[in-house]
Amino acid sequence: MAQHRFSPTSYHNVLGARDPVLRIADGDTVITTTVDAAGRDHENVERAPRPNPMTGPFFVEGAEPGDALIVQIQRMTPTRDTGWTYSLLAPNVVDPEILPRLPERHQVEWVIDRDAQTVRLLEPPKAVADLVLPLIPMIGCFGVAPGMGQAISTATSGRHGGNMDFRGFGPGAVACFPVFEHGALFFLGDGHACQGDGEIVGTGIETSFEIEFTVRLKKNANHGWPRGETASDIFTVGNARPLDQALQHATTEMLNWLGNSFDLDPISASHLLGQVVRYDIGNVFNPAYTVVCRVAKTWLRRPDSTLGWLG
Amino acid sequence: MAQHRFSPTSYHNVLGARDPVLRIADGDTVITTTVDAAGRDHENVERAPRPNPMTGPFFVEGAEPGDALIVQIQRMTPTRDTGWTYSLLAPNVVDPEILPRLPERHQVEWVIDRDAQTVRLLEPPKAVADLVLPLIPMIGCFGVAPGMGQAISTATSGRHGGNMDFRGFGPGAVACFPVFEHGALFFLGDGHACQGDGEIVGTGIETSFEIEFTVRLKKNANHGWPRGETASDIFTVGNARPLDQALQHATTEMLNWLGNSFDLDPISASHLLGQVVRYDIGNVFNPAYTVVCRVAKTWLRRPDSTLGWLG
Amino acid sequence: MAQHRFSPTSYHNVLGARDPVLRIADGDTVITTTVDAAGRDHENVERAPRPNPMTGPFFVEGAEPGDALIVQIQRMTPTRDTGWTYSLLAPNVVDPEILPRLPERHQVEWVIDRDAQTVRLLEPPKAVADLVLPLIPMIGCFGVAPGMGQAISTATSGRHGGNMDFRGFGPGAVACFPVFEHGALFFLGDGHACQGDGEIVGTGIETSFEIEFTVRLKKNANHGWPRGETASDIFTVGNARPLDQALQHATTEMLNWLGNSFDLDPISASHLLGQVVRYDIGNVFNPAYTVVCRVAKTWLRRPDSTLGWLG
Amino acid sequence: MAQHRFSPTSYHNVLGARDPVLRIADGDTVITTTVDAAGRDHENVERAPRPNPMTGPFFVEGAEPGDALIVQIQRMTPTRDTGWTYSLLAPNVVDPEILPRLPERHQVEWVIDRDAQTVRLLEPPKAVADLVLPLIPMIGCFGVAPGMGQAISTATSGRHGGNMDFRGFGPGAVACFPVFEHGALFFLGDGHACQGDGEIVGTGIETSFEIEFTVRLKKNANHGWPRGETASDIFTVGNARPLDQALQHATTEMLNWLGNSFDLDPISASHLLGQVVRYDIGNVFNPAYTVVCRVAKTWLRRPDSTLGWLG
Repeated sequence: MAQHRFSPTSYHNVLGARDPVLRIADGDTVITTTVDAAGRDHENVERAPRPNPMTGPFFVEGAEPGDALIVQIQRMTPTRDTGWTYSLLAPNVVDPEILPRLPERHQVEWVIDRDAQTVRLLEPPKAVADLVLPLIPMIGCFGVAPGMGQAISTATSGRHGGNMDFRGFGPGAVACFPVFEHGALFFLGDGHACQGDGEIVGTGIETSFEIEFTVRLKKNANHGWPRGETASDIFTVGNARPLDQALQHATTEMLNWLGNSFDLDPISASHLLGQVVRYDIGNVFNPAYTVVCRVAKTWLRRPDSTLGWLG
Repeated sequence: MAQHRFSPTSYHNVLGARDPVLRIADGDTVITTTVDAAGRDHENVERAPRPNPMTGPFFVEGAEPGDALIVQIQRMTPTRDTGWTYSLLAPNVVDPEILPRLPERHQVEWVIDRDAQTVRLLEPPKAVADLVLPLIPMIGCFGVAPGMGQAISTATSGRHGGNMDFRGFGPGAVACFPVFEHGALFFLGDGHACQGDGEIVGTGIETSFEIEFTVRLKKNANHGWPRGETASDIFTVGNARPLDQALQHATTEMLNWLGNSFDLDPISASHLLGQVVRYDIGNVFNPAYTVVCRVAKTWLRRPDSTLGWLG
Repeated sequence: MAQHRFSPTSYHNVLGARDPVLRIADGDTVITTTVDAAGRDHENVERAPRPNPMTGPFFVEGAEPGDALIVQIQRMTPTRDTGWTYSLLAPNVVDPEILPRLPERHQVEWVIDRDAQTVRLLEPPKAVADLVLPLIPMIGCFGVAPGMGQAISTATSGRHGGNMDFRGFGPGAVACFPVFEHGALFFLGDGHACQGDGEIVGTGIETSFEIEFTVRLKKNANHGWPRGETASDIFTVGNARPLDQALQHATTEMLNWLGNSFDLDPISASHLLGQVVRYDIGNVFNPAYTVVCRVAKTWLRRPDSTLGWLG
Repeated sequence: MAQHRFSPTSYHNVLGARDPVLRIADGDTVITTTVDAAGRDHENVERAPRPNPMTGPFFVEGAEPGDALIVQIQRMTPTRDTGWTYSLLAPNVVDPEILPRLPERHQVEWVIDRDAQTVRLLEPPKAVADLVLPLIPMIGCFGVAPGMGQAISTATSGRHGGNMDFRGFGPGAVACFPVFEHGALFFLGDGHACQGDGEIVGTGIETSFEIEFTVRLKKNANHGWPRGETASDIFTVGNARPLDQALQHATTEMLNWLGNSFDLDPISASHLLGQVVRYDIGNVFNPAYTVVCRVAKTWLRRPDSTLGWLG
């Protein structure tokens, strides 16, 4: 149950079998930093190229293919007072017919007030002059090496996690990744100070963070896709295009989870999901879109277990 | 501001320019009944064939193409003690590879306890023997005649509304449909006692209802898609496949709404939506899928107006 | 085996249960005219509004739901010397990112040389000044009443046919529609003097035609989707979005056809299709896209039968 | 213009920056061998694991990011007398509803008659007992290192090529890949003795080959996607899901090609493509689907140039 502090000096734009920067054990906690999606650090200095440079990978002792790596996000603290977004909805989230009528997209700056825990535009257009958003940090891109010799761009996502941009992956949440490589090789980065569903301007409010997380291992879990848990819900994550397929992946993973961990045969699980399931949309901007299939713990017979997969 | 009571004696399986059953005025309230998706009434007697037989149409005095018909759902009271669902996830919401491993789908009965305001399976599998759901009624299919001589099946949906199966369309919510025909011609039916996101077993808990609703007209509204409002949110609805396109329609409609009613130019609207938008999934079962684009009223400059489009 | 001449005086923008303009029998031939997609006739006079006004419907004696209506396109003769197209690729067929860089879309005129059997732009841009295309007529939109009280816009398509814009539906080809209404109620229109795959500028070369066709009935056919045949191939047609789903419909219909008419069980049919199937894209512009699943007759055990479903 | 013979001793399941097995120059020809999709060689001995083990990579002297690597497929000779396929349509190419009714999928053997240049099932079901197919070889998976540190599975495809399974990539055809890495790093494998459109049983007739190819470089080409050429056509390739997006990529790349190499501005290119474009479907089985946008050379002003991009 060691606590590690790690200061990265290099970053990765892919998730793959890269040399580990630190070896940690089941139960350990790590405090580290991440640069923003454009590679800028706490001093707004560019330390790495786009897209989404990752801190890591962290080698988790004992992790083997078939296991699951559980990552509890303990804390996310912005390390600077600025963030940035794009100024216009992404072209793929509106009807194509209207695109010629829209203005040009620019990169714009936001001010992060760490005392007030708020975020606002540095130079807001008049119509949103008084827009002050709460600071609600989340991790846009994290996950493990995808195995089979693959090194997958941090622009996209898959079974191994990656650039999912789901706003549910914030402090207090737990993420769980299938392990494909010896040591799991966990990467993280692309922190957002705030983000709506879908990451529909192509960014959250991108900034650098200090992040504290704890890892646990579940042996022989045989998960197919990322999973997660919050105080109130369990959820599964599907990454694909179109959204229809991402939803199929997430729903299938939830069906498996309910069957394996909660003794719900497909018909019982269908009765439950049919009436209580919630779907969230992670991103609809990246090459793979992200759909989350979520069930409130109150509907599960073991609502008092901390985590279905830790129980 | 009259109040009408209307007892239907026939039903429609399309939304189109059918003879009106009642003429009502802007501000009027109607109390009527609906049969379930299979045409069964309060005595569980089949009164009309599938799919989704509609009560109506109601002719709204003064409604003309280009206007918007605002429908406030005042109350939904189940009129019998039973409902039904299918027993298995629909084949299109899971990975196709697993379908051969799933059991057969059946129609199953639910018990609606109108005193306790709960719903439970009549003969539950053991694993969900203690599943008791809250009664949370919603309208699965409603809308107006689609214009241009079209008569569109109540199995699907479009700009005119229809079979959207969005659980947000319950008592207290307001729905708003673009008007395409003289008199609007409003239809409603397919009530659900409960339903999760996506209607992923192919049904909600289907039953018959008494429904009370009030209509209002917004002249020359020029909406493109259904809109809605709850105590906390405004929302727009896109109906299409894949979900990606439904999301484009809903987002574009919200962009137009924010521009026309809230003075947010595309860049200001993008700043807001990028950080606060929420997407809900109506159905992922019908020929057209449904995505809802939602914004909390707290983010709008006129949060005290009852309705953005009534204000 | 009568031959009818029919001159339309009114047109329909939906396929539905409209009053028949003519009653014809199994084996009869009809010679009639169609206006172009914008309703313009042989004198370029607008006779009906958009979209795709239809000639018909023709009531086929003896046709009942469950039958199939076979339509042989005997001849298509343009009735004027001009046609029109849009001047730019439709926004949905290119990457959304490039749309802001493209010029505006206009309607442009083409010259149809009926003697030379060619088509060329009236005022071509310099870069295509010498572009002369062969006159290869096809029917963009035809089909039958969709049943269940539906009246479906000629802008879209479905199981009943409609706006499929498949260039294979030209003279010599046979189309086959599932019958959903008493009398079938056959409509046709939207003739193109030429068209590439996908109708990617949103039109073919739109013009008015004289069309000669012969109908036949296949009783109790129980087809699910339109089918067709040429001198060399049989094919099935799926209409839906995304293309993935249209392809699923067309492939499933072919699997059924090979099973029912050619004694190929699913494994035998898979062996054949896996190695010889061809897919064509009808339109990728309309609300429903069109995919054609095609098999050369040379691979079928009854290659000498005129038509698999007539045999 | 050297001719190299290369016998691989190891294989790759990703396309990435792996150590080159041979350095070749612009204009050189290579004769090498490939194992089948399951790693089996000319003796049917498994030499490498699935999926689609690649021969290579070949380092092309002078190739730099931004260039294009032109690969002429000179010859493909099967190196054994057997191949294999799956026995059933893939679950994603038919309507999901029918999947529970289909039989199980098996791997089946085919006999390749190299003298007769034909292929037939070893133990055919009775209904296809006399099915004899022509030997029409093609390369299922080939391409270059994708750059940015990525190593992309040979199960899928992208801008770098990969598992496109387009039957047009056979002897006589030319493929052209954007270069992302110093030396291009060209890989090839996954040869098919025959395959229909879409690779809809999940395989072509998988076997091992001797392949002869010639490479050429086009400097500073700045292509976005693979391109190709046959005796009669030029074509572009888009790889993505859904097919709609693959078609957008391919069409956009063709628009760019027509603009840059054939002086067709967007409107002139639209006039041409709208009337003459052909779309082919590569695969609809892999994680990314493949659509080919094709134009007959007869429509281009430089039809006598060997290759538009070599001209």
